[in-house]
Amino acid sequence: MNNEMSLLTPAELLAHWQGHRDLTRRVIAAFPEEGFSAHHAPGMRPFQAMACELAGMVEYQLDWFRTGQPHWNENDQKKELPGRAELLAWWDKLSAELDAEVPGVAAEVWTVPVESPFGKMSPLTSVLYLIDNEVHHRGQGYVYLRELGVEPPAFYERSSLPRLG
Amino acid sequence: MNNEMSLLTPAELLAHWQGHRDLTRRVIAAFPEEGFSAHHAPGMRPFQAMACELAGMVEYQLDWFRTGQPHWNENDQKKELPGRAELLAWWDKLSAELDAEVPGVAAEVWTVPVESPFGKMSPLTSVLYLIDNEVHHRGQGYVYLRELGVEPPAFYERSSLPRLG
Repeated sequence: MNNEMSLLTPAELLAHWQGHRDLTRRVIAAFPEEGFSAHHAPGMRPFQAMACELAGMVEYQLDWFRTGQPHWNENDQKKELPGRAELLAWWDKLSAELDAEVPGVAAEVWTVPVESPFGKMSPLTSVLYLIDNEVHHRGQGYVYLRELGVEPPAFYERSSLPRLG
Repeated sequence: MNNEMSLLTPAELLAHWQGHRDLTRRVIAAFPEEGFSAHHAPGMRPFQAMACELAGMVEYQLDWFRTGQPHWNENDQKKELPGRAELLAWWDKLSAELDAEVPGVAAEVWTVPVESPFGKMSPLTSVLYLIDNEVHHRGQGYVYLRELGVEPPAFYERSSLPRLG
């Protein structure tokens, strides 16, 4: 990072992230159980598999924060996808773990690139990627919900944003 | 902003943003002309209308940077949606304007909340919202492309990310 003025503190990044995670949680909860595991576009996965990927990536990032190094083992990923209720409980556990772990990440660690299974990148780049990937797949979940006849939660209702009048 | 260590410089935010804009450009370009303006999920818009919204919001943000105040006039929005080629030319014009304008935004302006038509927020919060909104709708465009039989560009191929091996 250069010496230019910086914009975002780790606490602000965490609030932004958790605002997205809370919205994604409401999208998961909005799915009918069957459509959650069965409905998908051609060549794409059901939202159950996408949401499980999102949770698995948070596990990966938490492990990186705790050990100081990124590890990804495809074999660590869940073989049997959890149902909606189990996934929501996992989601809440991860949200609490992020609240506990992220404030303890040392300032000098955030922006230093390290070798990762997905290329050389800093924890910051990784977290921004995780958020982007969540927003990307959640947007796909909105289409699936509409195709299942369910109105999704409003995109702009997030705890890190001002309330619209 | 508090005095905690900060993570992201305006130049890094701009690179992140332009990396997303470049990917969205490739998604627009990947649409067949007819599906771009006609295909949509129930209760949702075709990707043409979404992409036009995304461009209109960049115009709004550029105007905010130039005048120091956010203005939104629904009547300023395009009545007739541009076709794919016209939209791509508009997209490129906006990308160049962002490259020209964003580095000149004064450091003290970025994180100060001001009244906006969408609630009281800083330019930083607004730009993060614009990026999130772009990733959200682009994810929906991925579903539309698949439904139209087109393979979308890879999500992780972005100029602001390391190349995957």
